[in-house]
Amino acid sequence: MKRISYKEIMNLPDRVRVHFMNSLSGFKSANLIGTKGIEGQENLSIISSVTHLGSKPPLISLIFRPHVVERHSYENIIATKFFTVNHVDRSFFREAHQTSARYPRDISEFKACSIKKEYLNGFYAPFVKQSQIKLGIEYVESYEIRKNNCIFLAGQVCCVYYNCEYFLEDGSLDLESAGVVSISGLDTYHSCKKIAKLPYAKPTKKN
Amino acid sequence: MKRISYKEIMNLPDRVRVHFMNSLSGFKSANLIGTKGIEGQENLSIISSVTHLGSKPPLISLIFRPHVVERHSYENIIATKFFTVNHVDRSFFREAHQTSARYPRDISEFKACSIKKEYLNGFYAPFVKQSQIKLGIEYVESYEIRKNNCIFLAGQVCCVYYNCEYFLEDGSLDLESAGVVSISGLDTYHSCKKIAKLPYAKPTKKN
Repeated sequence: MKRISYKEIMNLPDRVRVHFMNSLSGFKSANLIGTKGIEGQENLSIISSVTHLGSKPPLISLIFRPHVVERHSYENIIATKFFTVNHVDRSFFREAHQTSARYPRDISEFKACSIKKEYLNGFYAPFVKQSQIKLGIEYVESYEIRKNNCIFLAGQVCCVYYNCEYFLEDGSLDLESAGVVSISGLDTYHSCKKIAKLPYAKPTKKN
Repeated sequence: MKRISYKEIMNLPDRVRVHFMNSLSGFKSANLIGTKGIEGQENLSIISSVTHLGSKPPLISLIFRPHVVERHSYENIIATKFFTVNHVDRSFFREAHQTSARYPRDISEFKACSIKKEYLNGFYAPFVKQSQIKLGIEYVESYEIRKNNCIFLAGQVCCVYYNCEYFLEDGSLDLESAGVVSISGLDTYHSCKKIAKLPYAKPTKKN
């Protein structure tokens, strides 16, 4: 096996290091973050760092890169306190990827990337119409990581919209049937196929 | 589409809510965290919250549940500052899942779950021999989330071991070829198949 050290990673060409590091955590979630600024400008951006943070209360987290360039989604969340998390599926992952382009603040990625928006039940931030699973989230708190100035942001689930056919008996949503994709590295999209659903593990019993 | 509110989520039966919430972020990474306590006891636990945190310096993050019960991995990391992140693949995901059982502190999950360990190049914490991609990590900092007392932990990559055949031209590792699995919910394991690798998105060009 090849070994690469911290120093060697630091010495890699920038683009190579970014691709390498982005593939190191494993397969990642694919979500579109929907926000609306205080002046009404809508923003949509793909993100692969949404993580489960807690069930009671229902919390999710995400990571934003350092706030040294314009971060429209992050700024809108801090200013308005609400955002949406919309699952990306096979039917529109190309359009979703296109939201990663650096559009100016006054351009809505919904329009620029041909993604349909919808407002649901009075929730402040826009949802993605195509998404089969979408969450309305209220900002809770954030932490700036001292080491690299990234921002870890926690949000509470206000509401979830999903198609009933994806609700499984145990309470989980069937992401595979919903066509939800995963991401590896910066730019590679994958479909996921179930191998096995395993029972709750106990010390006395092996799967 | 079905809508479920914060209040309705809070009122779900505990097991249902846990399954529901764990499926809401999308597909998750599958990693085994290897640690060794100050008295030499080895610990291995599966985790699905490892996330890319930064490329320069090379950082990853993970989330631990509240420190109200014994959290052997977390305690070992804080005490010794080093841990390993080992990718779970199709060849041993059942054994990896079994590490989620609550073994007493003096039982090594390596032994209890039939997972081979190895020590590499003097790194303090044990690696998983079977893993095709494995990282040696040094603790950097952690934050206790006020809302639910979970812990967000950041670590710096000291070294990475991987099979050269999985290294792609752009610098990323081919997780699919390595057989790496993803997790949905608490207990469902998936293989991932590439749909497309998309070019860097620019405002002037659509995919």
